[in-house]
Amino acid sequence: MTTAAAVPQDTPQFNEAELTQLGTRAFQGLGLPREDAADVARVLLLADLFGLSTHGFSRIESYGERLQIGGINARARIKVDAPAPALRLVDGDNGVGPLVGMHALRAAMDAARTQGVGVAFARGSNHFGPISPYGLIAAEEGFASIIGSNATTTIAPWGGSDARLGNSPLGFGVPNPGGDPFLLDMAMSVVARAKIRNAMKAGQAIPDNWATDAAGKATTDPKAALDGFLLPIGGHKGYGLALLVDLFSGLLSNAAYLTHVQSWSDAPEQAQNLGHFFILIDTSRLGSPQWLAERMKDFAAILHGSEPTVAGQPVIVPGEIELGKLQRQREQGIRLDAAVVALLRQHAANARD
Amino acid sequence: MTTAAAVPQDTPQFNEAELTQLGTRAFQGLGLPREDAADVARVLLLADLFGLSTHGFSRIESYGERLQIGGINARARIKVDAPAPALRLVDGDNGVGPLVGMHALRAAMDAARTQGVGVAFARGSNHFGPISPYGLIAAEEGFASIIGSNATTTIAPWGGSDARLGNSPLGFGVPNPGGDPFLLDMAMSVVARAKIRNAMKAGQAIPDNWATDAAGKATTDPKAALDGFLLPIGGHKGYGLALLVDLFSGLLSNAAYLTHVQSWSDAPEQAQNLGHFFILIDTSRLGSPQWLAERMKDFAAILHGSEPTVAGQPVIVPGEIELGKLQRQREQGIRLDAAVVALLRQHAANARD
Repeated sequence: MTTAAAVPQDTPQFNEAELTQLGTRAFQGLGLPREDAADVARVLLLADLFGLSTHGFSRIESYGERLQIGGINARARIKVDAPAPALRLVDGDNGVGPLVGMHALRAAMDAARTQGVGVAFARGSNHFGPISPYGLIAAEEGFASIIGSNATTTIAPWGGSDARLGNSPLGFGVPNPGGDPFLLDMAMSVVARAKIRNAMKAGQAIPDNWATDAAGKATTDPKAALDGFLLPIGGHKGYGLALLVDLFSGLLSNAAYLTHVQSWSDAPEQAQNLGHFFILIDTSRLGSPQWLAERMKDFAAILHGSEPTVAGQPVIVPGEIELGKLQRQREQGIRLDAAVVALLRQHAANARD
Repeated sequence: MTTAAAVPQDTPQFNEAELTQLGTRAFQGLGLPREDAADVARVLLLADLFGLSTHGFSRIESYGERLQIGGINARARIKVDAPAPALRLVDGDNGVGPLVGMHALRAAMDAARTQGVGVAFARGSNHFGPISPYGLIAAEEGFASIIGSNATTTIAPWGGSDARLGNSPLGFGVPNPGGDPFLLDMAMSVVARAKIRNAMKAGQAIPDNWATDAAGKATTDPKAALDGFLLPIGGHKGYGLALLVDLFSGLLSNAAYLTHVQSWSDAPEQAQNLGHFFILIDTSRLGSPQWLAERMKDFAAILHGSEPTVAGQPVIVPGEIELGKLQRQREQGIRLDAAVVALLRQHAANARD
């Protein structure tokens, strides 16, 4: 795991085409057909472009390990059923998460193109990267999106004392024909575990609303917190939202949910049976591109127009930071952690075609 | 405004049929056609049954005042367009919120019945009550739902210093053919303003994550907080979620959004042009009732099975409290605040047919 900020300036640098090729070859080297490897590389590349490097090509490590020991199926045959005109049920056949995610996204976009709305439920999947790449791809084709996935359990039910639900991410996107879309991608915990690990390394106490100890009591001790559970945002509200995401991602999709989700770190050799949902709405059915562009511009202007409480720190809109990084890295090149690049090259060397 | 807990035991008591009739007559007395009045009464009655009395028949006061001065249109002609098979655009014609909400809910359910998924966007609306009644009605017909509405501005953008977005509610429901559905209905602020008012009355400080003062700085002084803005759950995360709800409820629906939403309290005589969205999924297309009932039972059992951190306070699932109150009040009768009943009777006396 690494973050964009931690990547030093002498690390390997790529342009988008080079990194797409290297990433695709790496997943081919891990046994994926070329077209499937390209899907996975597309999502992870966008993650790195957004600066979400913990969810980018650094995942080659865990994905690669699980592919090599058969925990993920390199030759997944993904099936898409259409039980109703606007509904798609995607069986991921335990494929690499971003591959299943891209199939589900395309299935939902196909349905939305003809029906105005398309919903895809995916099962038999794995960690599918961050949500923003899917939200951006959808937005670029004119679709507003609400997307979620369930995850390995790290959160105790509100008032409970053991991990029974995942820090399930929820995201949305709204296209903007006149500029940048709005993109949000968030998990329901107050912070990620990485932030607690950082506090422990720095020898610092943590705020008491970040996590509980192993008995489910709020704690300011990062060590106790790492043995305990993450706390959801807004207490019972975040608990409810995390359940919403799991009910739609896991229960309705016919995937695993709550404690039935296998942990990719504790049981890497087993299928996780993760689930996702994609709700796509074709905004071209709601109004003209001019209509939408005008409203999106006005919406952003209203938010940007609020005087900052801290001088020099203007109000931002969802996705603004990530899309700024994407543009800068597209212009100036993408830097990746040297260890990640070495691993990509090692796997790419095994690609056969 | 009152809460269920505050209603003394000597207040008027009704059964469901009596209160439905009185509520319907009251809105007829305010000028609504009988069928429209019945829609409004249905939503507000469910709110009171759930114990959400601040969003139940107590609203007759503000709805009634606005109907009488023409701020809400008593004779709204609600139009529903279908720009695509799974999409519905509802023009509420500035009707009473729950009336517009019920039209949009039915439109989305109609679309979902044939397409598997139905999405309705409503504009030209007003405060539509709580979300749980819509979620319950949908769940009883087998539809999973995600529903939201925008609202008068009470929250500053994250890092900003004036109210530019509403405390927009978001809710969901998942049906359970074998028992109680899951229902969630939440706003994005850490607490409602009522809780800050209660702290002020009690002379108590408030936690510093509830609200800011008028300059946008976090405060523990309830008086300063009431002059300031509510803080969203999870800081920037709740800010993002509140924007999601407004983007779908207001921007995409062609309603007002952010600061364009008129305040029902500051400008009761003006149309608010509030917006809502209803996303409905027909769960019968996903699996059999037995399949769903079994998964819902297991899902709840996993959560209930977590040992409580505080003895005697078991983990609950979303909607459990509200559905428990609903059942108790259906059996034992519904108690309403005497002032609310007096107002209902006063308006009902004006009903003509």
